Order: sequence, then C-alpha cells, then structure tokens
Amino acid sequence: MRNFNYSIPTAIFFGKDQIGALSEQIRNFGGSRVLFVYGGGSIKQMGLYDQVVAILKTHDLPFWELAGIDPNPRIESVRQGIEICRKHKVDFVLAVGGGSSIDCAKLITAGFYYESDPWDLMIGKAKFVKALPLGTILTLSATGSEMDNFSVISNFQTHQKIGLGNPVMAPKFSILDPTYTYSVPKKQTAAGTADIMSHTIENYFTAVKGAYLQSRLAEGILKTCIHYAPIALANPDNYEARANLMWASSLAINGLLSYGKERKWSCHPMEHELSAYYDITHGEGLAILTPPWMEYVLNDATVEQFKDYGVNVWGLNPGEDSYALARQAIVKTQEFFMSLGLPSTLREVMIGEENLKIMAKAATKDGAIGEFRPLHTEDVYNIYKSAL
Amino acid sequence: MRNFNYSIPTAIFFGKDQIGALSEQIRNFGGSRVLFVYGGGSIKQMGLYDQVVAILKTHDLPFWELAGIDPNPRIESVRQGIEICRKHKVDFVLAVGGGSSIDCAKLITAGFYYESDPWDLMIGKAKFVKALPLGTILTLSATGSEMDNFSVISNFQTHQKIGLGNPVMAPKFSILDPTYTYSVPKKQTAAGTADIMSHTIENYFTAVKGAYLQSRLAEGILKTCIHYAPIALANPDNYEARANLMWASSLAINGLLSYGKERKWSCHPMEHELSAYYDITHGEGLAILTPPWMEYVLNDATVEQFKDYGVNVWGLNPGEDSYALARQAIVKTQEFFMSLGLPSTLREVMIGEENLKIMAKAATKDGAIGEFRPLHTEDVYNIYKSAL
Repeated sequence: MRNFNYSIPTAIFFGKDQIGALSEQIRNFGGSRVLFVYGGGSIKQMGLYDQVVAILKTHDLPFWELAGIDPNPRIESVRQGIEICRKHKVDFVLAVGGGSSIDCAKLITAGFYYESDPWDLMIGKAKFVKALPLGTILTLSATGSEMDNFSVISNFQTHQKIGLGNPVMAPKFSILDPTYTYSVPKKQTAAGTADIMSHTIENYFTAVKGAYLQSRLAEGILKTCIHYAPIALANPDNYEARANLMWASSLAINGLLSYGKERKWSCHPMEHELSAYYDITHGEGLAILTPPWMEYVLNDATVEQFKDYGVNVWGLNPGEDSYALARQAIVKTQEFFMSLGLPSTLREVMIGEENLKIMAKAATKDGAIGEFRPLHTEDVYNIYKSAL
Repeated sequence: MRNFNYSIPTAIFFGKDQIGALSEQIRNFGGSRVLFVYGGGSIKQMGLYDQVVAILKTHDLPFWELAGIDPNPRIESVRQGIEICRKHKVDFVLAVGGGSSIDCAKLITAGFYYESDPWDLMIGKAKFVKALPLGTILTLSATGSEMDNFSVISNFQTHQKIGLGNPVMAPKFSILDPTYTYSVPKKQTAAGTADIMSHTIENYFTAVKGAYLQSRLAEGILKTCIHYAPIALANPDNYEARANLMWASSLAINGLLSYGKERKWSCHPMEHELSAYYDITHGEGLAILTPPWMEYVLNDATVEQFKDYGVNVWGLNPGEDSYALARQAIVKTQEFFMSLGLPSTLREVMIGEENLKIMAKAATKDGAIGEFRPLHTEDVYNIYKSAL
C-alpha cells in the first residue's frame, strides 16, 4: 500500500427532503449572492428549479442564473459564469444537476480568482490559488463530481477534453436526494452506472501490491451497481435502487478506493478522446472500451486480479482455472453493460476508423497512460480497433 | 436506507514516515503550546517518544506531558489533563498511542471549556460547546478513535464506562504509520482485530432495509481482518498486514459503515459492563460475547443476513440451507477468534456468575440495547450466561 494523505472535506446531506438544509448551508459558508448553475430543462420538469428558487427567495439570497450547461461542459460556459460572478459580486456558486453542471461550476469558482482565461488553469499555464465556495444538488448518479475536487472541461476549438483536480474546487456540501434521480431516462441511468463502475474498475485493477482493503471495498461498490442498475431501469421510482446508486457514485471516486493506490487511469483518458472528437455520452464510451481494454491487459501478471474480480464480483466458482475465470468475468462485464441497453461497439455510436490513430496519439501525448499496464499509442490504437 | 448527514473531517496522514507532517499540522490548527498525552512505556521503547519530543523541541513547541493513561482510560486522568492545560495555557492536545490515550485526550479537549467536572459531559449533565484542537499519532489498530468523535471513559467509583460522541471531539488530523504497530504484542494485536471486527459487525447486522452498499463495504473490512490478522501475528513486521489492519480500524467506525443505518449497537454495551466491573481487555470481551450474541439473535427475521455473512465473508457455499449457513458462519467466527489466541468464555478471563444479573441490568438501564434485535435485561443475562 502506498502512503496517502486523506482529506474528503465535502459534507453530504443524503436522503429524501434534505434540500431543507440548503439555505443554512449557503449561509454557513458565507454565501449571500448566488450563481445558480444548471443544465437543461430536467430540473424545471421535476419541480426542483422552482423549489430552489423559492428557497433562495425566501431566505433573501439574490441569485443569477447560468443555464444550458452541455453534457460535456465547455470552457465558454465557464467564461460566461465567471463574468456573471464578477459583474454581480457573487460570493457563492450553487450547481444543480449532474456532473456537467458541477464540473462547470467548479472551474467557475477557481477561475473567478484568476484574472486571465480560465482555460489556462486546465492546461497548467496558471496555478489554482483559491475558489468561491461551492454547493451542489445532485440529480444524476454518475460522475461523483459532487464529492471530489475534479473538473472535466471540453474545448472544442482545440479538440481537448481535460480533467484536472485541485483541493480548492471541492464542494463545501452536496445534497444527495435519490428522489431527484427518479426522472433520469433509461439511457442516462445506464450510462451513469457504467461511469460509476468504470471509476471503480480504474481504482480496482492496480499495479500496487497490498492495497487489499481498498480492492475489497471496490468489489462492494461494483456489486451494488450490478444489483441495483437493473432495478432502477425496471422501476425508476425505486428509492432503494436510486439511493444505492447515488451513494455508490460518490464513494467510487472521492478517494476512498484510490488512497494507497496509483492514480493514473486507463479507460478514462481513452474515452476522453472519443468525447472530444465525437461528443458521445461519456458512460457509453466507457462501456464500449472497458471489456476490450480488459482483454488487452490480461496477462500472467494481471490474471490473478481478474480471477478475484470474477469470483468476488461476479460470483464465479473459485475452483476453476484463472484464465478461464478472467475471460468469463470479462464476458460477464460486457453482457451486463449490454443488458442495460448500452452500446458495445464504436460503430454503434457512429465512430469509424477515420480518427482512431489521431485519437490514440492524442490520448498518449503526455506519455503512456495507466499504471496497471501502461498503454502507449500503439496499445490505445489496438484497443480502439478491437472496440470497433 | 435512512437519511444521513456525512461529515468525516479528520485529515489522515497514512504511511511510513508520515510523522514528518506533525509540526506543520500542529501549527496549521493554531497550536503553540502542547499537551502530550500517552500511555505506558511502549512509545518510549520504540523510540517514538524521543522522536515526538525532538520534533516539538526543534519547532519551538513547548509541551507538557500527561503520561500513564490506563487501557480503560479513567476520568481522573481527564481531570488531571485539563488542569495541566489550564495551568500552562495549552492550546493544542497531541495524543500518542492507542484508543485509550486518544479517548482520554478527546474529553480533555472538550472538558477544557467546561468549568465544572468533565464527567458531567459524559453523563449528559452538561453540553459540549467547543474543544481544543486535537491531533493523534496512532500506535494500535483497534478502536478507530483516531478518525471518529467518540470517547469512552471509565469511572470506577460509580462502576460506569460510558461512550459518547460529539463533533467537537473529532481529531483535526491523525498520523497513521503502520510501522508503529510492529511492536504491538500478540495479545493486543488479536484483541485489536476483534475490536475492529466487532465495530464492523455491529454496523453490518442491521434492522434497516436497503443499506446494501454499506453492508458490502462492511464485508470488505471483515475479509481484510480475517486475511491479515494471522499474518500480523506470525510476522509482526509485515507492513502490508499492519497497514491493512490500521486502515480497517479507522474505516470500521468513522461513519462509512453506519451512515444510512441505525446507530444502536449490541455487543459493545454488553461488553462495556464487563470492562467496567472487571477491567478486562475490551477486544477480548467482544470476542467472547459476539458468537453467543449471534446465536441468540439468529431467527427467521435475521437468518438471511447471517447467510450473506457466511457466503460473502467466510466463502461458504451459497447453495446450502440458510440456517445451516448461518450456524457455520457463527462457528467460523468463534474459531477464528480462538485461532488468534483470544478467549472464548467468560471464565477464561475470570468472570463467573456473581455479577451477571447486575451487569445485565446496568447494560439495559436506559432501555433495550441494539436495534438489530433489541435486547432487554433478560436477553443480556441469557447471552452472558451462554458465554460463561
């Protein structure tokens, strides 16, 4: 197990009607003038928009809106948000939605204190110093952005999608009410589950020896996703299923599974190129890439981890041969994603051979990706190809 | 799953040589004059005492010592510590040791701001308002006190051992270096493991429906203890084993496993009476009581949870009858504790029938204990008796 410094400062208000804590929490963190960041019309349809507006008005918290955040949030939205904050002397940012709205809000909070273009922060040209306080109300179980300090922002001008973390961007609090996810469509429920499982899998398969506890916790989160995603698809209003998926989304990526292990991931950087070039749904890209990646990295050095995965997550019989178990587990993974209605090939999301080489180069422009089994340009290209 | 408010504010510095963070962290939390709380000679034998003293001296942090904290820390030590803090204008408390030193330090930090006797805080006669900042350096994997806000203090005058939590008592930071536990004797290593497992088991068996994720995480922690305790006993210097047990001790009781479930426990309140009357080792008492408690609460309403326990934790064959699996799992539990050299009967720790009725009454003086299957005086007495 590697050394680690643990700090997960975000307070969580989990459960039905926890929105009752909103105004007090905004005040707790010195908020008096709020930027209200959200995506499309879903929060209006479910009545959450009206509820938030009523709370802010009742508690004399003037607010300005930044609406229409895209599924892959763009640097343009961040710039726009910072402008509103400066113009209206905003001192608190509230993101209501899924990972996109939260990620966008995060870079707004940090970019507010940086004079030049916020994209500089993402490309390492400028340093994070401080940030406006951020609160979130989650409406989609997927990215875990509600409890970590990462932000993923796209710049379509430069064909870049960059994910970067900094402690100043961690939300001060997040309100997780599973009933807000009842209206999430099947496609997003499935893609969100693939995202949660991918975060967990990235942390699970590891080159670090002896982080046994973390691996057992990861298995628990994977089993939770496998158990509840089909229930949530069949019964969108099942509180238990929505609650377990929501809490899984936060714990998969808040550090619990990665503390003590490496932090260099594999499928995410590969998928980021797909989204950057084709603007596909992140979770769908992960569901497509994960099984071929597993097959590609399966070898004598990794087979025992795949065996653990098969036995502890998929309930396979430990008596069988390790490679047989590993291959069965990979098939189970792909079949599970397909059973959720997720695509299993790139062609299904209209991606052909045309940009595979360019994307493989882009994914590895800073060197090999992943630490479990480092992937060079050629490896990424091979995985993309076998995912066609 | 029940609603919950998650807040685990303690920062953790985990791994070899993390003591390097000590002086900076004390300063971070405004410390300039330190009360140094510790137990017996073990921290001197391993050189940790000298190391701490050198760091405090090098960084101009004057300190006063409160040594000799007992395994079941006493209210007298707390009173003494508060007196030293007041006399020398101490503004930071540093506990170095296991749960006893940390628990004692916690009540010192809160009692400092309460004018009258600190025992008033434990019996609910006075309210917690604020506390001095607390840092800890852990040398025993067991109580999890390094990452929660609970303190357990004994008052032998009144035959009371009371555990109570309050947010003000949460450590600001804890340094967890597994090498500090290399010198922990076999008996304490075994008892500490029983304590970690008991915390996990108290959170695992639950009357709350649908906290599935939390139960799967608990299974991961139990498997970690079962895997590594024998290794730590056979090879006390095995870093991997000590690291996994240490991190398990913190995660078993910091809230991760209990958020969303009930918080009323069963074996702990029963064991507290044993320690209060006989001053036995807490973990030994838990190892003795847990299997008979399991047998006592096994019934049609609980058998499926015991089946999960048998299959997911002990690797039993899921095809068998639920009751058969449950009973096998209970036997496995007892055999495991015995394999660690722990006692399995009260008589082995010199407890006879003489006080069983009095202790059963004391354990239930505020009503039935436990929410999984509520235990009244008669139930506790029966469990004590079957543990003889």
